[in-house]
Amino acid sequence: MSEGGLFDAVLARGGAREAVSDRAWLQAMLDVEAALARAGAAAGVIPADYAEAIAVACDAARYDVAALGAQAAAVGNPAEPLVRALREQVGGPAAEDVHRGATSQDIVDSAAMLVARRALEPLLDDLDAAGDAAARLAGEHRDTVMAGRTLLQHAVPITFGLKAAGWLVALDESAERLRIVRDTRLAAQLGGAAGTLAVLGGAGPEVLAAFASELGLAEPVVPWHTSRTRVAELAGALGQACGVAGKVAGDVVLLAQTEVAEVREGGERGGSSTMPHKRNPVAAISARAAARQAPGLVATLLAAMEHEHERAAGAWHAEWAPLRELLRATGSAAAWLRDSLGHLEVDPQRMRENLDSTGGAPMAERVARALADALGRDAADELVREALADGRLAQAAGEHLPAEEVERLLDPAGYLGAAPVFVDRALREHAASDRGEPLA
Amino acid sequence: MSEGGLFDAVLARGGAREAVSDRAWLQAMLDVEAALARAGAAAGVIPADYAEAIAVACDAARYDVAALGAQAAAVGNPAEPLVRALREQVGGPAAEDVHRGATSQDIVDSAAMLVARRALEPLLDDLDAAGDAAARLAGEHRDTVMAGRTLLQHAVPITFGLKAAGWLVALDESAERLRIVRDTRLAAQLGGAAGTLAVLGGAGPEVLAAFASELGLAEPVVPWHTSRTRVAELAGALGQACGVAGKVAGDVVLLAQTEVAEVREGGERGGSSTMPHKRNPVAAISARAAARQAPGLVATLLAAMEHEHERAAGAWHAEWAPLRELLRATGSAAAWLRDSLGHLEVDPQRMRENLDSTGGAPMAERVARALADALGRDAADELVREALADGRLAQAAGEHLPAEEVERLLDPAGYLGAAPVFVDRALREHAASDRGEPLA
Amino acid sequence: MSEGGLFDAVLARGGAREAVSDRAWLQAMLDVEAALARAGAAAGVIPADYAEAIAVACDAARYDVAALGAQAAAVGNPAEPLVRALREQVGGPAAEDVHRGATSQDIVDSAAMLVARRALEPLLDDLDAAGDAAARLAGEHRDTVMAGRTLLQHAVPITFGLKAAGWLVALDESAERLRIVRDTRLAAQLGGAAGTLAVLGGAGPEVLAAFASELGLAEPVVPWHTSRTRVAELAGALGQACGVAGKVAGDVVLLAQTEVAEVREGGERGGSSTMPHKRNPVAAISARAAARQAPGLVATLLAAMEHEHERAAGAWHAEWAPLRELLRATGSAAAWLRDSLGHLEVDPQRMRENLDSTGGAPMAERVARALADALGRDAADELVREALADGRLAQAAGEHLPAEEVERLLDPAGYLGAAPVFVDRALREHAASDRGEPLA
Amino acid sequence: MSEGGLFDAVLARGGAREAVSDRAWLQAMLDVEAALARAGAAAGVIPADYAEAIAVACDAARYDVAALGAQAAAVGNPAEPLVRALREQVGGPAAEDVHRGATSQDIVDSAAMLVARRALEPLLDDLDAAGDAAARLAGEHRDTVMAGRTLLQHAVPITFGLKAAGWLVALDESAERLRIVRDTRLAAQLGGAAGTLAVLGGAGPEVLAAFASELGLAEPVVPWHTSRTRVAELAGALGQACGVAGKVAGDVVLLAQTEVAEVREGGERGGSSTMPHKRNPVAAISARAAARQAPGLVATLLAAMEHEHERAAGAWHAEWAPLRELLRATGSAAAWLRDSLGHLEVDPQRMRENLDSTGGAPMAERVARALADALGRDAADELVREALADGRLAQAAGEHLPAEEVERLLDPAGYLGAAPVFVDRALREHAASDRGEPLA
Repeated sequence: MSEGGLFDAVLARGGAREAVSDRAWLQAMLDVEAALARAGAAAGVIPADYAEAIAVACDAARYDVAALGAQAAAVGNPAEPLVRALREQVGGPAAEDVHRGATSQDIVDSAAMLVARRALEPLLDDLDAAGDAAARLAGEHRDTVMAGRTLLQHAVPITFGLKAAGWLVALDESAERLRIVRDTRLAAQLGGAAGTLAVLGGAGPEVLAAFASELGLAEPVVPWHTSRTRVAELAGALGQACGVAGKVAGDVVLLAQTEVAEVREGGERGGSSTMPHKRNPVAAISARAAARQAPGLVATLLAAMEHEHERAAGAWHAEWAPLRELLRATGSAAAWLRDSLGHLEVDPQRMRENLDSTGGAPMAERVARALADALGRDAADELVREALADGRLAQAAGEHLPAEEVERLLDPAGYLGAAPVFVDRALREHAASDRGEPLA
Repeated sequence: MSEGGLFDAVLARGGAREAVSDRAWLQAMLDVEAALARAGAAAGVIPADYAEAIAVACDAARYDVAALGAQAAAVGNPAEPLVRALREQVGGPAAEDVHRGATSQDIVDSAAMLVARRALEPLLDDLDAAGDAAARLAGEHRDTVMAGRTLLQHAVPITFGLKAAGWLVALDESAERLRIVRDTRLAAQLGGAAGTLAVLGGAGPEVLAAFASELGLAEPVVPWHTSRTRVAELAGALGQACGVAGKVAGDVVLLAQTEVAEVREGGERGGSSTMPHKRNPVAAISARAAARQAPGLVATLLAAMEHEHERAAGAWHAEWAPLRELLRATGSAAAWLRDSLGHLEVDPQRMRENLDSTGGAPMAERVARALADALGRDAADELVREALADGRLAQAAGEHLPAEEVERLLDPAGYLGAAPVFVDRALREHAASDRGEPLA
Repeated sequence: MSEGGLFDAVLARGGAREAVSDRAWLQAMLDVEAALARAGAAAGVIPADYAEAIAVACDAARYDVAALGAQAAAVGNPAEPLVRALREQVGGPAAEDVHRGATSQDIVDSAAMLVARRALEPLLDDLDAAGDAAARLAGEHRDTVMAGRTLLQHAVPITFGLKAAGWLVALDESAERLRIVRDTRLAAQLGGAAGTLAVLGGAGPEVLAAFASELGLAEPVVPWHTSRTRVAELAGALGQACGVAGKVAGDVVLLAQTEVAEVREGGERGGSSTMPHKRNPVAAISARAAARQAPGLVATLLAAMEHEHERAAGAWHAEWAPLRELLRATGSAAAWLRDSLGHLEVDPQRMRENLDSTGGAPMAERVARALADALGRDAADELVREALADGRLAQAAGEHLPAEEVERLLDPAGYLGAAPVFVDRALREHAASDRGEPLA
Repeated sequence: MSEGGLFDAVLARGGAREAVSDRAWLQAMLDVEAALARAGAAAGVIPADYAEAIAVACDAARYDVAALGAQAAAVGNPAEPLVRALREQVGGPAAEDVHRGATSQDIVDSAAMLVARRALEPLLDDLDAAGDAAARLAGEHRDTVMAGRTLLQHAVPITFGLKAAGWLVALDESAERLRIVRDTRLAAQLGGAAGTLAVLGGAGPEVLAAFASELGLAEPVVPWHTSRTRVAELAGALGQACGVAGKVAGDVVLLAQTEVAEVREGGERGGSSTMPHKRNPVAAISARAAARQAPGLVATLLAAMEHEHERAAGAWHAEWAPLRELLRATGSAAAWLRDSLGHLEVDPQRMRENLDSTGGAPMAERVARALADALGRDAADELVREALADGRLAQAAGEHLPAEEVERLLDPAGYLGAAPVFVDRALREHAASDRGEPLA
């Protein structure tokens, strides 16, 4: 159940919030215990009916999150009290086979992988939808001319389609990266007290294989309890997605400025009670706020890779909060971005007006090149610079070039280079992108 | 009310957790609205009875956190729906005077300062108690000899008192820093739509002064809605406290290692169900885990200082989660550290055994210096190095020095330099430290 | 000597670059050795003429940075080879008294404090000059009306003076914070092998006091070799200054946008060879780039606070690069900001045009309030919203209010609230700010 | 040429240091200009002999790094002055074709990719060699019994081979990740003034393809000047490698502790002049120090992904220093780790002694299970706990079980579970790992 916290509607939009909730974590830990029991049964370590009895008891609705949480303080993790509670629920001789072969970290780590995979589902839905919206914008505005802006100054003309195509490729790349991590790097963890699975005697590897298969997670070469490459790689991919969301949302915010006014977010949102004229791009702003959580959280997770020996004395526990927070924030950024791009209203006329507002400055590069043949490069540059300052570029160019040539040179639609080609490439790539279901 | 989440007992110990809860945030925002109304009354902008009617309605129990949170999505912050709800609660003509002169950010920012101040109370209690525990350890073990360890190798003898005195000074410094920030840098924010308080006409500065006074917060020179030095300074002080907690907890973890075994955490905690011999320093481990959240969160808050113009389009919203998380994590680190140091069992005999276990290596520097007079520096160093390798330092030294001189040289208790003096200095400083109440 | 690296002119402007160079570090370590010798002499541990012989040899010009650096690999720090080289330079019996009582970390830590203090000089000069430029702008434009922008949308009118006053107060606060850290928290470090100063017998505290006095650094209560609060506090203050620089520079970049064009950076800089019309705010851009280094570097330094026992096995070494880089980046941000603000050309006419460009939208709040008396609040809001959409706010208001009243209501210069008062407060505070020399 | 700075031998070991030097950056920018000219020739945009004349001039030895760096201040990047200098070197009509179609960022971004690829060569050599050393240790110590340690307490027995196998897999994973990034994500950047390649008319895409091919870098779908996924992905992979290095080095430091003494670093390094007995694991310590730079630097790079429009006003420039620093630090961590593991001396006897030092505690879990059949689980646990406290576990167990059974139960070599199997899996995987050359 969603908590509906005071800030969550702004900071934790999207399905990832519920997917990382306490309830979801609890169910994931129980799913892990169930998978462990079944894997034990498959390997002949546990009677099959015991395993099923255990699996039946692995329903989060039977447990009290708060009570388990409170008991976690005594041992430093919530898996240990959960095992006790699960044994009580199972009862009888099967209770002895609960958690067979595992240590608390096995449960928490494998659950973390499940939680991540589940949180990635709505997150990727939203990221893909944002990508689709970018694709739609790129296609519709393949030939909509606007000012290209470098260092926030007008440079040369581009199309809004090209800008959206840049967003699109980056969104697709970050989604693809997350899919690869989900499908290849989320792995089961099972090592027992110190990574040897000694309690299972010779059956350890067989149980591990069955356990991974039950969970639909990759089987690791060796237990990874203190090798946190998987957490780091997940963190990096989430951080990258946030970076992309931040870039796209930032562009929306800048384009929506009062003076620029080339886009606005549609829908019901963004009004101001005290200032009735205001139209705030709330979705893009919220996407930025979420995206900016990522760098610090990724840093925390990378810094927490230094696990001592066979179980870290703090670094492991230090992962829980930032991993959850990072999934939540990335999910929120993706959900808000989908919202922003999905309702984006584009004003091609205003784009053209802005582009023209400087009297042809974005075409200065082109005009200077054309004049250079007649006047030499330095003189041409000088002439263009002075003409721009006086706002009479066309006139000045007309003294050296035929009128229709000047008109042609000053037409931004004729100076777009490969912009439409790049749009087409991005759309083709997007259409071909694989969004298949996870491997497992 | 505390949430009792699955991980909170481990990751969010101490009173700061409740002090940053949604409920606490809501009450803080309401306290700010009440103070604003009263300040308006004091300045003659609002009738006094209206102000009191508003203040009466500023009770969090009257409001539905989840509903307010949900409405926040439309505008991007929870203050705006709260104002509407508060107006409804107040009703009548006084409702018009709710929120007079303020904008949403004024409410959230001032509330953030209140929340921080309130969270610092239990946090500082715990930090002070940890300091007191360190002081007790420093005093009791002023002369308890142990190995000084550099780069995790035995170096020369120190006392456990000196080690604890180092903890003590750092704890006192970080608590003092937090007190200064609390007393001088937590300030009221009131600027209206864009920092001019235009709605209040000429009364703005007077209302601001009364408002700050009502809240017991500092009055700023100018509104600080986009100058986030105060948030940054608070973050830095919390990060510093976490760094100290991490250092102390890390020492406890290292001293508690099976092979070192010089301290252990007492109390009921830290047992292992599957390994009955284990005695895990759960409190120190949990303190470390909490402390390690800080660097990334501080980085997020520092990166969020770049607020655009008169209200940031994302950077402001980006502060809410990390500020809350940082207060919670620092509070947890302090609470766990208090627990760890408060129950620390010290084994002076084991300290001495470890120190002696290398056959006098920690005294080698001293012996070599004594031999240098007779043999020259290089020969003395060589002799000592070889004797140590063979485990016969005393014997080798005895060939050049009188027996009682060798005994004296090899006595670590006679090679402690200023250790006891430093302990006394730290204890004196601690006794003199000011823990007075906040100025406001 | 400055290195003049490929990126340094952009990324490492200002005097801090040289102050943290290898040469400067070497001289600082030598200054520390000289101070140690003199302190030893003052305490009677070293003959005075030996101390002077040592001090004479403490001239960086006599040493080969590259050779010392290469030798550092064998022991993991550059102080140890420096001591050997210094002993060679001193020669004779005085050589034995080089480094008496100290360990390598004492030298590096105390040198780091000297380097920091020296780097803060040009850094604070630049920060103060940026503050002075902001003060000048605030004073000159105390009454220059412009659009206040929230979430990058026009809100209500402000003055450019108020904006500059906000910059000013933040700059003053960050400079003040750095001064406090410089004057009270930069401390000498002297503890010997493990913090006891055992080699000095009973003279340790006396030598420590004299040593701190020689260096003009604070005397710590106990050695702080593994209590890194001082480094953390310096880092926090630098990070805060960068955050302020980033905010101010960000505003400049936004105001300089082609569509906004309310300011531009003067001077010779910022042209584009291929686009002769461009005028890039290079100084503000470079200040931002430098400022954005800080959060990550501060995080590294905070994370490095966890020093083990009596000397950290990595965390200490991990401080060197980020501390240097943080001083350099903050210095660069301050120098670029001084440049940007010092040459800022302000266009009050364009500010007014932009403010007026929406047909009175920034005054809508005021007009609606005035109409509310006649029409009721909801009807007034509705009327204003519709009139704005049609661009006929004045006309619509004129149907309900006298013409001169409408004119008055729509005059932004009459809706500035406390803006000028706040400007005056900031200027007064700035004039009173203490920029005295360091205490030592 | 290497700089040999004061701290570089410690902090910047390995070949990556030179590969990211100013000289290397300059050559990379020149290589990019040469490739651009040849690509232009291939596409018929530039005469072939002009292209060769340009390529000949692209030799870093002809240029003055310091002078170029100084000129960079005026425009905010070093590419612009380099283009001017290159034009001078080329002279004649070919000079006009220097830089044809490109903007400064194209040069710097493509050069950054070259620099990264070149720095990854020695870095991966070192990382692979560290992996090989780990493989050797895993193989040699496949059956060397030692204490498994969780939370730094003895848990159950493992083998040193298993520990080394864990290192091995993590090292291989991080190297593999870096190879994938190198081979698939380092891409050419070419977009001209704003990403359209307008200056090249219709030839843009053809030039781009040839340009990428010349550089041996991937060809992007669209220009990525403001989509920084590639930088982010490289940063994440480097951060992950540092995390692994930190974990392995941390284990070495802990195992080398005086009280543990199970490994030591061989070779000449690590002595202490003042404490002749000390043997510091300098290589592992330095690897840790380098590795700990990564989280903050990765955070800086992720935070810098928010590039505005068609060229970022600060975020782009903010990448240069941390990318360089991250390559340098990761290279240093890899080089030091190779050194540490390559010279690691392992003491199997001491491992066994430490394991046995607790009187069988690591076997308690096993003994309790065996006794549970006879006594029931609770009674068995109780008996074992008490027996351990008294140090008479064997005796107590012998009262309920046959002597040879007790001996068997207490033999750690018989309680290693899948440890040897996991070692074999890791070695097999390592042997099969692909270390082929880059695709290009």
